[in-house]
Amino acid sequence: MALTFKRSWTDEDLDLYRDSVGRFLEAEMVPGDEDARHRGNVGHALWRHAGELGFLCSDIPEEWGGAGGDFRHEAVLCEEMARRGLTGMGTSVHAIVAHYLLNHGTPDQKARYLPRLAKGELVGAIAMTEPGTGSDLQAIRTRAERRGDTYVLNGSKTFITNGFLAGLVLVVAKTDPAQAARGTSILIVETKDLPGYRVGRVLDKVGLKAQDTSELFFDDVVVPAANLLGGQEGQGFFQLMGDLPYERLIIGVLAQASMEGAYAATLDYVRERKAFGKPVAEFQNTRFKLAEIATTLTVGRAFIDRCVDQLLAGQLDTATASMAKLWASEAQGRVVDECVQLFGGYGYMNEYLIGRMYTDARVQRIYGGTSEVMKEVISRAL
Amino acid sequence: MALTFKRSWTDEDLDLYRDSVGRFLEAEMVPGDEDARHRGNVGHALWRHAGELGFLCSDIPEEWGGAGGDFRHEAVLCEEMARRGLTGMGTSVHAIVAHYLLNHGTPDQKARYLPRLAKGELVGAIAMTEPGTGSDLQAIRTRAERRGDTYVLNGSKTFITNGFLAGLVLVVAKTDPAQAARGTSILIVETKDLPGYRVGRVLDKVGLKAQDTSELFFDDVVVPAANLLGGQEGQGFFQLMGDLPYERLIIGVLAQASMEGAYAATLDYVRERKAFGKPVAEFQNTRFKLAEIATTLTVGRAFIDRCVDQLLAGQLDTATASMAKLWASEAQGRVVDECVQLFGGYGYMNEYLIGRMYTDARVQRIYGGTSEVMKEVISRAL
Amino acid sequence: MALTFKRSWTDEDLDLYRDSVGRFLEAEMVPGDEDARHRGNVGHALWRHAGELGFLCSDIPEEWGGAGGDFRHEAVLCEEMARRGLTGMGTSVHAIVAHYLLNHGTPDQKARYLPRLAKGELVGAIAMTEPGTGSDLQAIRTRAERRGDTYVLNGSKTFITNGFLAGLVLVVAKTDPAQAARGTSILIVETKDLPGYRVGRVLDKVGLKAQDTSELFFDDVVVPAANLLGGQEGQGFFQLMGDLPYERLIIGVLAQASMEGAYAATLDYVRERKAFGKPVAEFQNTRFKLAEIATTLTVGRAFIDRCVDQLLAGQLDTATASMAKLWASEAQGRVVDECVQLFGGYGYMNEYLIGRMYTDARVQRIYGGTSEVMKEVISRAL
Amino acid sequence: MALTFKRSWTDEDLDLYRDSVGRFLEAEMVPGDEDARHRGNVGHALWRHAGELGFLCSDIPEEWGGAGGDFRHEAVLCEEMARRGLTGMGTSVHAIVAHYLLNHGTPDQKARYLPRLAKGELVGAIAMTEPGTGSDLQAIRTRAERRGDTYVLNGSKTFITNGFLAGLVLVVAKTDPAQAARGTSILIVETKDLPGYRVGRVLDKVGLKAQDTSELFFDDVVVPAANLLGGQEGQGFFQLMGDLPYERLIIGVLAQASMEGAYAATLDYVRERKAFGKPVAEFQNTRFKLAEIATTLTVGRAFIDRCVDQLLAGQLDTATASMAKLWASEAQGRVVDECVQLFGGYGYMNEYLIGRMYTDARVQRIYGGTSEVMKEVISRAL
Repeated sequence: MALTFKRSWTDEDLDLYRDSVGRFLEAEMVPGDEDARHRGNVGHALWRHAGELGFLCSDIPEEWGGAGGDFRHEAVLCEEMARRGLTGMGTSVHAIVAHYLLNHGTPDQKARYLPRLAKGELVGAIAMTEPGTGSDLQAIRTRAERRGDTYVLNGSKTFITNGFLAGLVLVVAKTDPAQAARGTSILIVETKDLPGYRVGRVLDKVGLKAQDTSELFFDDVVVPAANLLGGQEGQGFFQLMGDLPYERLIIGVLAQASMEGAYAATLDYVRERKAFGKPVAEFQNTRFKLAEIATTLTVGRAFIDRCVDQLLAGQLDTATASMAKLWASEAQGRVVDECVQLFGGYGYMNEYLIGRMYTDARVQRIYGGTSEVMKEVISRAL
Repeated sequence: MALTFKRSWTDEDLDLYRDSVGRFLEAEMVPGDEDARHRGNVGHALWRHAGELGFLCSDIPEEWGGAGGDFRHEAVLCEEMARRGLTGMGTSVHAIVAHYLLNHGTPDQKARYLPRLAKGELVGAIAMTEPGTGSDLQAIRTRAERRGDTYVLNGSKTFITNGFLAGLVLVVAKTDPAQAARGTSILIVETKDLPGYRVGRVLDKVGLKAQDTSELFFDDVVVPAANLLGGQEGQGFFQLMGDLPYERLIIGVLAQASMEGAYAATLDYVRERKAFGKPVAEFQNTRFKLAEIATTLTVGRAFIDRCVDQLLAGQLDTATASMAKLWASEAQGRVVDECVQLFGGYGYMNEYLIGRMYTDARVQRIYGGTSEVMKEVISRAL
Repeated sequence: MALTFKRSWTDEDLDLYRDSVGRFLEAEMVPGDEDARHRGNVGHALWRHAGELGFLCSDIPEEWGGAGGDFRHEAVLCEEMARRGLTGMGTSVHAIVAHYLLNHGTPDQKARYLPRLAKGELVGAIAMTEPGTGSDLQAIRTRAERRGDTYVLNGSKTFITNGFLAGLVLVVAKTDPAQAARGTSILIVETKDLPGYRVGRVLDKVGLKAQDTSELFFDDVVVPAANLLGGQEGQGFFQLMGDLPYERLIIGVLAQASMEGAYAATLDYVRERKAFGKPVAEFQNTRFKLAEIATTLTVGRAFIDRCVDQLLAGQLDTATASMAKLWASEAQGRVVDECVQLFGGYGYMNEYLIGRMYTDARVQRIYGGTSEVMKEVISRAL
Repeated sequence: MALTFKRSWTDEDLDLYRDSVGRFLEAEMVPGDEDARHRGNVGHALWRHAGELGFLCSDIPEEWGGAGGDFRHEAVLCEEMARRGLTGMGTSVHAIVAHYLLNHGTPDQKARYLPRLAKGELVGAIAMTEPGTGSDLQAIRTRAERRGDTYVLNGSKTFITNGFLAGLVLVVAKTDPAQAARGTSILIVETKDLPGYRVGRVLDKVGLKAQDTSELFFDDVVVPAANLLGGQEGQGFFQLMGDLPYERLIIGVLAQASMEGAYAATLDYVRERKAFGKPVAEFQNTRFKLAEIATTLTVGRAFIDRCVDQLLAGQLDTATASMAKLWASEAQGRVVDECVQLFGGYGYMNEYLIGRMYTDARVQRIYGGTSEVMKEVISRAL
């Protein structure tokens, strides 16, 4: 059947890698997921376990403690979690933190942090969004004031993925409030026992229940000047822009995998479940809906695969990556909604994968740049 | 502005009634709603309070303890809760229980139960759906076996609105398994201290967090034969069909009010919130989305009002009521989804009304007959 | 069935009127429609015939030669043509011309033109749009220069409904190019034997084949100053704004009637036509589509009826009328498209009503203000 | 910009081929298109000219008179016509006729007909659909009765692409009415001076104005028994099934190219055209619509390319090809509709490419198997 055709970017080694990721998730993450959803975080042990097995920073060179893979390895981890509805580990944010360090960090910064990120000793987070700012970087008010060999940080951040567990936070702050983009820098903040640093509430979200999305507060937090990412002020904006194709494609990859998981679960359900004396799968309405969904998935797979191939070849531009994020997250919203409907009342239960996928899916059109921001970006490229 | 034009079915008295309902909700229900959502039920006190103030069974004649109003009074209560995102009291199910008793009950049954429903002493529930049956009444397996002056009930029910708090449950059961529709009856079950009756889990749903939707189990539960609704076996199916216009329209009313509440909240938000230096309300995309939503609301209001007028005149047929349920719940799904998007990240927070409305809205296309069941019903009438 | 419920604004007299309109159309317009579509106009005889029977200017007072009816009579004519797919007589534009004269004309202007419009001796047109201007009145370049007792008109207009047959054209022109809105006036132009006046091509449109939509050219056309609508310069913009509720609602009325006609034709077709051994009407997909369409129609009918009631009561504001135009024309686009699909290959044949309705429907979202203009107008009222 | 990335299946030779096709169309087909649309056919000269240049049967081996190319060459011709809105030559049907001969014909049949199809001496058509049958092959009533060395054909066909100009018609007929699929055969009919053969009306369609889609009538038409395709009775059904991936993908290719042409024309238009004092392209609504369209095109391109690659590798299954037809034709419908809207009134003029593309697009969801038939096919493969 059409839906099983091989990803264009996989091979035998990668399939083995995928299997081992799957076994890890089934053995170590799935059993604790319900608890994690009630608690609002997956705990440090899981991160360290993933790190030990080499699933974190899989695309960071071995010299910096990574696994020496490429985007495909991150994608596999992301996909395998997504199709199982596992949202507690923000591994793609973790990976992006590692990429910022790899691409923009000083040798010392890389040496100090990358290995610990790879081991899962430090969970990474990016503190960009502030209450009321959304995707508008210019509006950032968090201040990093230079004092001697240090920066003093003041401000608050919100919607921070991995915020509660984060040991390493890349904080986007103004080093020169008089300037817009060029006044923005990124500081590497180790959070352990850090005076003035406070994690606010783990936010009560519509979905992503196991994910420790949090508010963060900085109150005269002192950070060594050596922790300025790249060592030069005013580079924050450009450092953030540089990895947009990676960040947006990973959300597209996640959306596609999530749809595939939802579809598989729905197909199983409608074949088994009966209504009015026959399997739900035999009603023309069901068959047509499934045919439409299968078509969306097949189309999406071809597109996401092409984007992955382009990224691997260093040719994915930001506009196309934004299309991947936009299209796949919008498709995910529709597809998962239709799957819920095919489950009837059970689709509304959190006990069912599809119920959780429904609430998890909604944020995909919002975070990492809303659909509206994607359209802005795309329209500028036309 | 167009959205404020008076409902066709309201008048000064009803406006006063609406005000008093609103004051009650603000004073008594809103403050405890967060707790109720965590606990999974609103508690008995709120129901009794609502009963004391005459807000329950408002359309039941005074001779049976009701307030002597009509559908409009139920609609007002329903609307005022819906636009505030209050879902904990299943008053429309409660009202439908009362209607079954009023329309089909023996004089003795009415006298025994209607006043206690009106006072909120008994919370009403309807136990129809069973694990795996959905809307398919023919597939019901719960058995009510006649033994002398009693019926012995065995079976299990699920998705029962008000299930945890219910003191009075109308149980749909087979009295003659050899027959389909004509073998179905409804038993009036008082649940207090009833041997063999058990409330299962309060279900962990995608939304409706304050609503005590539950599983119910009946294990050799003995019910007096006098509690057979209407006193005659085999009438269950027809009793259930009789009130469909009422049941479906109330869901339509709720959907419309919920959209109006979502719209009002969104309008406030986009005017206040800024992005890229200007209020979100000033972007053309925002203005167009709001214009589309306002149009949907205006159209929906005209349609729902016409249906209410027809119901009051005794002229609302089941197909048209099914259209009200279908159209308004589908519109609600789209509108609330678009409102969430206009809120950005905050729309994904349960702290915000719009976040809760999003998860609450999803079930409207499922319960009370799915959209697909509505389409079946409508297509048969064409 | 739900779809036949009486319009809220009709009564026995109006039903009789509707019957006579229907008989006229069947006898006089339907037989010649195919020819009219090939020729690109219906000819003067039909207009005069309609006038003799009192179907033109039906809502103009008898003192000015009209039939003394109200909006409902215009609506009935419009509806009966729309549901039969008859588009050749632009009676609603004709009616709007009459309204401009009635509402803004001097007594002399009314006396001179209204009776002849009512008789169909003069076909009315409004020349507003220019090549490249669309709905943007400020951009009008046609110039009316005062010279003694006359105005000299120069400019060109396009997309003029009734343009080829028009004997009376209301030309929107700049009397004072230095001013925007306040520099705009309307001139009443009798076209017969008028030097410098030229009708360009009857435009080759996607649909509306029998409608003589044309370009008009004015080359030093001399018009008596007495033909300035209302007698005062600079009023054009305000005169045009005044009748927007009427103009937009009539498009909504037309859209609704057109959908009802399409639905009726489709219902007949799918019951008769067989596929894979059974009537197309029995497939679940067909039944669900028809249920959705029937729901849209029922909802739309309630809304349009409410707007008609408001207009009759003098209470329809421009924003709500714009909603009627927006919603109904968008719904028409979707519904007619779905009906075509249910016809399969025959839906693509102009021989079939549904094929013609498809191409006719497309312009409804464009003329009389595009959907985008409607959204602008609505959003300003929020 | 993303939209210009190279098709995965092209190369330098193919780009040269594309250029020469483009020059041919601009020089020979575009200038006569308006006439062809009024006349309802492009005439034989154009077909012969295309044949001389090697553009017909480009993927038929040279040994049979073809150009020895592959699917890509057919695709290029199809694409270049589609993006220019040229619909008069049904080259894909012509190609399918050639394929039937190539794949199923006897050596003698190939030798007799393929070279003449390649030269454009014979225009090919497939006569399958009958009045009232649609895609339901079982319902075919045209009868081919064996009499000695001949078959006698009786029946009528409709919606026959290339019907008026066709010199070679593959007629699907019943050779054994007692059997369903196994009673169906294909006869090769040379139409010139053939007694009893009659071409009915060139159908008056919603669009495809230059295409000579016709009715065909067979009244005791005598065909040599040697003209039974493949020489064996009862193979018709299987012969028709065999090329479905090719047939459906070519419609998908056409849809994609048509969207790309519509998009390019729209982009040009909105940049040039002004409204309310600024280019239409600068309104946020325009930019967002274009971003959505560009995204659809980019996604579609990746999918269609993957399907082409699979077809070239002999791996495209019918279900996936049906997805290509379904998805791309549905996307085309939406995209072209949105482009029309961005043109405003000009989008409704046949003078504009976009107006013609609108009416042409509608049939794509109908012919070659409706969207509903595609969903049936896909759902059976799940």
